[in-house]
Amino acid sequence: MLADSLRALVFDVFGTCVDWRGSIIRQCQSLGRTNVDWEAFADEWRTDGYIRGIARIRSGETPYVSSDVLFNKKLDELLPKYGVNGLSEQQSQALATAWRRLDPWPDTVAGMHRLKSRYVLSTLSNGSFATLTQMAKHGGLPWDCIISTELRNTFKPAREAYLLAPTLLDLQPDQVMLVAAHDSDLKGAQKAGLHTALVLRPMEWGPNGQKPPPPDPSFDFVANDFGELATQLGIA
Amino acid sequence: MLADSLRALVFDVFGTCVDWRGSIIRQCQSLGRTNVDWEAFADEWRTDGYIRGIARIRSGETPYVSSDVLFNKKLDELLPKYGVNGLSEQQSQALATAWRRLDPWPDTVAGMHRLKSRYVLSTLSNGSFATLTQMAKHGGLPWDCIISTELRNTFKPAREAYLLAPTLLDLQPDQVMLVAAHDSDLKGAQKAGLHTALVLRPMEWGPNGQKPPPPDPSFDFVANDFGELATQLGIA
Repeated sequence: MLADSLRALVFDVFGTCVDWRGSIIRQCQSLGRTNVDWEAFADEWRTDGYIRGIARIRSGETPYVSSDVLFNKKLDELLPKYGVNGLSEQQSQALATAWRRLDPWPDTVAGMHRLKSRYVLSTLSNGSFATLTQMAKHGGLPWDCIISTELRNTFKPAREAYLLAPTLLDLQPDQVMLVAAHDSDLKGAQKAGLHTALVLRPMEWGPNGQKPPPPDPSFDFVANDFGELATQLGIA
Repeated sequence: MLADSLRALVFDVFGTCVDWRGSIIRQCQSLGRTNVDWEAFADEWRTDGYIRGIARIRSGETPYVSSDVLFNKKLDELLPKYGVNGLSEQQSQALATAWRRLDPWPDTVAGMHRLKSRYVLSTLSNGSFATLTQMAKHGGLPWDCIISTELRNTFKPAREAYLLAPTLLDLQPDQVMLVAAHDSDLKGAQKAGLHTALVLRPMEWGPNGQKPPPPDPSFDFVANDFGELATQLGIA
């Protein structure tokens, strides 16, 4: 039975474990600038700074930099674009590290504790090692270890990014399962021989944002949250 | 004040956090071969397999392999040397992974929980990433992340091994303190710009084994255990 042969669960983080959009909007709103469209700001920071930034590196258009650098470069563009000026040094520093203080979804921490009772739990994220470590401390995410694709200067969905997890954990790929909210990520993991669990996060892009497509039948598990995944794996 | 400017504590593991010698001897004794000198076996496994194995790699005498490979190569030599034969597949497998099941010193887990309330806690060990991760799960060591010198195919006391911690954690070297029981390790960390805390582990080599030298006055902290270190750092 698959649940018995698995040894480690590795997790996508942004969107899967934490509500990046709500957390970024809340942090931005706390700056007190009521005339700024912080929802659009957060979406653009994520979409053009991170997702497209990674795509440009993977295509060879731009050289490798860590995702922290991508976030900070985009921030420098977005602040003038959205008319955010006159920030204090402390406010600028808070924005520059905002992605280290993302709040978990309501089910994340309790679900992880259940899953941790049987499996090694690790991140497998394009977030930087420092960002993932600080975020865990901020949100109380009980990882056994932090694996970032930064450790190999690569990004998911590169095959080597997925193989980093079984390699570092001294496991076979089919003893590892990726838990993620995104189809493309799970498909990448499948191609590298990992098992897959889709966790649906319909609120990732906000109440009016894009919704996930119907679950692909090739995924080993499909769950509405981490607690449901634990139950499907037979963990009390 | 140093306690306030530090952000992360990184720990040597074998000997500092866990009682490798007692744990290995207990696991070996559980095989039921009463005619084997398991104390000598454990000491030789550690001294010649790991410590001298690393020294040979660092000197360029032998090519890089992970410490897991060093342990397993030495095990293959020691079993016939000590007259241990006819092991079952399960017993052989248990010995091959024995260094993943080392027990913490009695003060380790409680002290770590206190230290974790203020600092990022990470391993900074020559043990492999997989070994350190499994050992944490075995002993309940509440790391925030696992850093192994294996991530750069290097070993302490190479300067780059120490710098791996501030680099991955996005900190300056002087925001990081190495906690270790061994002078040479702490001196290596000092040379790389890290702060240092010596924790005395006089029982590392057993009741009749070698004792640590008097503490070098250059170390920032000297403590008898992790709880005392937390108190010295002002953590309740």
